[in-house]
Amino acid sequence: MSSETLMPDSVLIGLDWGTSNRRAYRFGADGGILEKRADAGGILAVPANGWADSLAGLVGDWLTAAPDAPVLLSGMVGSRQGWAEAPYLACPAGPAALAGALWPVPMPDGRRLAIVPGLTCVDVDGVPDVMRGEETEILGSFDPSQAEAMVVLPGTHSKWVAMHGGLVTGFATFLTGELYAAVRGHTILGRLMPAADAAGTGDEIGDPVAFALGVQRALDGEGRLLHRLFSVRTEGLFDHLASASLPDYLAGLLIGAEVSEACKSGPVRAGTAVTVVAGTALRARYAAALELVGLCPRIAAPDGAARGLWRIAAAAGFTGTPGTGPVPCRG
Amino acid sequence: MSSETLMPDSVLIGLDWGTSNRRAYRFGADGGILEKRADAGGILAVPANGWADSLAGLVGDWLTAAPDAPVLLSGMVGSRQGWAEAPYLACPAGPAALAGALWPVPMPDGRRLAIVPGLTCVDVDGVPDVMRGEETEILGSFDPSQAEAMVVLPGTHSKWVAMHGGLVTGFATFLTGELYAAVRGHTILGRLMPAADAAGTGDEIGDPVAFALGVQRALDGEGRLLHRLFSVRTEGLFDHLASASLPDYLAGLLIGAEVSEACKSGPVRAGTAVTVVAGTALRARYAAALELVGLCPRIAAPDGAARGLWRIAAAAGFTGTPGTGPVPCRG
Repeated sequence: MSSETLMPDSVLIGLDWGTSNRRAYRFGADGGILEKRADAGGILAVPANGWADSLAGLVGDWLTAAPDAPVLLSGMVGSRQGWAEAPYLACPAGPAALAGALWPVPMPDGRRLAIVPGLTCVDVDGVPDVMRGEETEILGSFDPSQAEAMVVLPGTHSKWVAMHGGLVTGFATFLTGELYAAVRGHTILGRLMPAADAAGTGDEIGDPVAFALGVQRALDGEGRLLHRLFSVRTEGLFDHLASASLPDYLAGLLIGAEVSEACKSGPVRAGTAVTVVAGTALRARYAAALELVGLCPRIAAPDGAARGLWRIAAAAGFTGTPGTGPVPCRG
Repeated sequence: MSSETLMPDSVLIGLDWGTSNRRAYRFGADGGILEKRADAGGILAVPANGWADSLAGLVGDWLTAAPDAPVLLSGMVGSRQGWAEAPYLACPAGPAALAGALWPVPMPDGRRLAIVPGLTCVDVDGVPDVMRGEETEILGSFDPSQAEAMVVLPGTHSKWVAMHGGLVTGFATFLTGELYAAVRGHTILGRLMPAADAAGTGDEIGDPVAFALGVQRALDGEGRLLHRLFSVRTEGLFDHLASASLPDYLAGLLIGAEVSEACKSGPVRAGTAVTVVAGTALRARYAAALELVGLCPRIAAPDGAARGLWRIAAAAGFTGTPGTGPVPCRG
């Protein structure tokens, strides 16, 4: 077989390169994903000065087959601990501003390689916030036909992002996922729970009633999270909730608190459509919590990072059609 | 020397026997503390059926010298994992109710030994709360001349306790201390901080300005704790706060959130006197946070648990003067 049969021409190679994992995509001339790969080669796994080799380790054959294709990277690869530090860009920002602030990394073979900068904003109290990698995923996940949009990226550090006219106008980060893991793994609340987190890995919520109870109590609690957390212990102690249901109850308290905090701080009103960018387990939980508070969850199509990389690359003239702005959402 | 010279007569032996540590007191006929001891023989350190031996290991000579003195125990020794489970008593409750619900433990030599029960209450949302050990410390720490009092016991699981006419009428638990340790030790926020918690062990607050900033932001944040926690990372990332100041900032965010939640949930109003029962490091932090929110901190005298044990023992007729109710506070 010829290499043409095996590997149609790539016009762009893109990577969402995070702390622990990375996903790589190669794109055809129309922005379609010709092939994708993933591995555990996050930035923590890369030795000093091993960046180019690490990239070749995942997509060396793609690079060889398309010597002229530019490479665009997003995520923690642009942090102080990454390949090169791409300074944060201030909001509001969209594909054009991100394209204008791409951080070039010189390559020995002259190939064009650049890193998408993260975003920063300052809230009403003057407190800064940051994201890195999510800006690309968001630009590939929201519906560009909407003038106003709200996008949620649940996870270790959940992000709630306000969009206006295709630009990210502001956002807020919540420590929800990391706090769940720390509370479950390293406080007395976790000792009442089963050891394995079966509830956290499946597509369904293990005990939807316990989860909804947690969300509702978080909403009723008017932000009294430090107090509500102790109820995980007492509800277990008095056998009101089974041990196996306590992880869902804790998740409900935390996700409910996040939704409640996000609704307090910004432009989220009942009836607002909120796009959720998440894998299966979190998707079900966030959809349930958003519905409980009167918001309308929309689940984003997969591969948002890929679409975002393509949009930014197109705006930067990396894709052969210079600076044409956002391409239509392919989700 | 005669044993009389060495060891004046004890009329009561009392222990505050917790999860990790215990403190023992022997009392004279007037309720004065003749001697006190402490060790790391908390209930986790006691082997199955080793309770009497463990008690003798700390105060065997006291028991021998005073064969008729009753023994009163408070704390986690009365939990399901302790010597015997003393069922929770419902609020409101004071020394008389606790004395009436003492849980007797039969001793081979016929000595009177009993465990003080913990307390339980239910909040307006129907969520139960519990304490075990703190009820005794509170009864020895509040000023009985006050008709109304608010007592705070900061720590792993902070308790805010409302008193009326000498009774505990209600309380709320906050996961503050345990969450501080989990966040500092097991999230990305802790990685920006110095390894050793010098700030957490001293009498003074390491960086009072960073602490006060955390408290103020918690108060301004209207309960948005999940979001505010992420500011520990960004304030470090942008060099707004030095690495060494971040633990104080985090402590301020959490203690400020606790004070804010407590003020929302109950009878705490500006100008209220709040008695703080805590060791040096936490005492300074809570006093500062209470003043920032307009409350008036009063620092409780040490050995509140000893005074509480004496009061409950007196109400139970353990001290030779049957059922005389609370004795004057000796603090």
